[in-house]
Amino acid sequence: MEYQQKQVSIREVRFGKNVTIVQPSNIYQCQLGDDCFVGPFVEIQNDVSIGDNCRVQSHSFICSLVSLGNNCFVGHGVIFVNDLFTNGGPSGNPSLWKKTTIGNNVYFGSNSTILPVSICDNVVIGAGAVVTKNITVPGVYAGNPAKKLR
Amino acid sequence: MEYQQKQVSIREVRFGKNVTIVQPSNIYQCQLGDDCFVGPFVEIQNDVSIGDNCRVQSHSFICSLVSLGNNCFVGHGVIFVNDLFTNGGPSGNPSLWKKTTIGNNVYFGSNSTILPVSICDNVVIGAGAVVTKNITVPGVYAGNPAKKLR
Amino acid sequence: MEYQQKQVSIREVRFGKNVTIVQPSNIYQCQLGDDCFVGPFVEIQNDVSIGDNCRVQSHSFICSLVSLGNNCFVGHGVIFVNDLFTNGGPSGNPSLWKKTTIGNNVYFGSNSTILPVSICDNVVIGAGAVVTKNITVPGVYAGNPAKKLR
Repeated sequence: MEYQQKQVSIREVRFGKNVTIVQPSNIYQCQLGDDCFVGPFVEIQNDVSIGDNCRVQSHSFICSLVSLGNNCFVGHGVIFVNDLFTNGGPSGNPSLWKKTTIGNNVYFGSNSTILPVSICDNVVIGAGAVVTKNITVPGVYAGNPAKKLR
Repeated sequence: MEYQQKQVSIREVRFGKNVTIVQPSNIYQCQLGDDCFVGPFVEIQNDVSIGDNCRVQSHSFICSLVSLGNNCFVGHGVIFVNDLFTNGGPSGNPSLWKKTTIGNNVYFGSNSTILPVSICDNVVIGAGAVVTKNITVPGVYAGNPAKKLR
Repeated sequence: MEYQQKQVSIREVRFGKNVTIVQPSNIYQCQLGDDCFVGPFVEIQNDVSIGDNCRVQSHSFICSLVSLGNNCFVGHGVIFVNDLFTNGGPSGNPSLWKKTTIGNNVYFGSNSTILPVSICDNVVIGAGAVVTKNITVPGVYAGNPAKKLR
């Protein structure tokens, strides 16, 4: 077969203590704090920082330039975004990607989609939500686009 | 590398006759009825019961405490939820998780998200829908949150 | 264990030049143009045609009867649909499935869901959008159902 084949792997990761990863997952050039769990079918890219005591559930994708605090929960199928297609399409140039900064005790419901934003501590994102704006007030947010429920 | 590594597997499953599973998938401590098909990149957790003649398509996640009837179709990327974060965040205590009970002939469109609900027989869930409430009337439901279309 | 086990694979694919695929992925009986990239945890089914210089990111699913032009970008977790359950449920009969025809320079944001439609050249689909209708005017579309933003 005439194609270049690569394989998922776990490489060049800075691990805290007591980290568990279920394979196959593709996790590289990032850091995971103490007592983290990562489920199967997950990709975590370079330049991601995850704090202590976080869970990243199956089928999630955490892109470059995402930072999670401590005690965060990333539900199943949660996908982070760093490229807003600002020039009308995807950029191969990482300097155009945007960062995402998440506080402590932030819980992302399954199948939610997180554009490059900042989210403060103590926030719950509902399942299936699409987060398009910064969140600066603790609470529960849901819908597409996500709005504060309570 | 200093982390604990696990691998997806198919373990402690009670199978009906003529079940096909595409690997890699992570399927454990559950039961699958006769003539079921499960695509790749799927996770089905403990204490899930699936009836006869069901299809679970690729990239789906069926969490603990979900029960599906017969002749159900779980599209690609469908994700079930059992933890409503009722105490403000995810619960490590399964006694706080909620169950989902699905009837016969229920068809979940791709990328839909299903919170812990009951759904009666003969229901279609549209692609990308987020189901947040019980469904007691047969029909087609779509949107976020899902509402009856017809 | 009493079940039939299959494995994902890359088989019977017609490759252009300089194609890269990250495994595990399940890609069969389709064609990929020159300079394409396919991330991990992807399924591309039979009778899919993808043009030159396209990227299909991790966790995506491209079903039978989808055709993509050149320079397209399929974000993470994007799912295409070909079966509208027109007879009230999924059809095992491919003659009832509908085709999807995508032009050139079409960019699908992550976690979007694409029903069987036609989309013209130079379109951006927002992250988390659900596309339910043909798109004939270039622009940016988002939401569930997707509507033109600008």
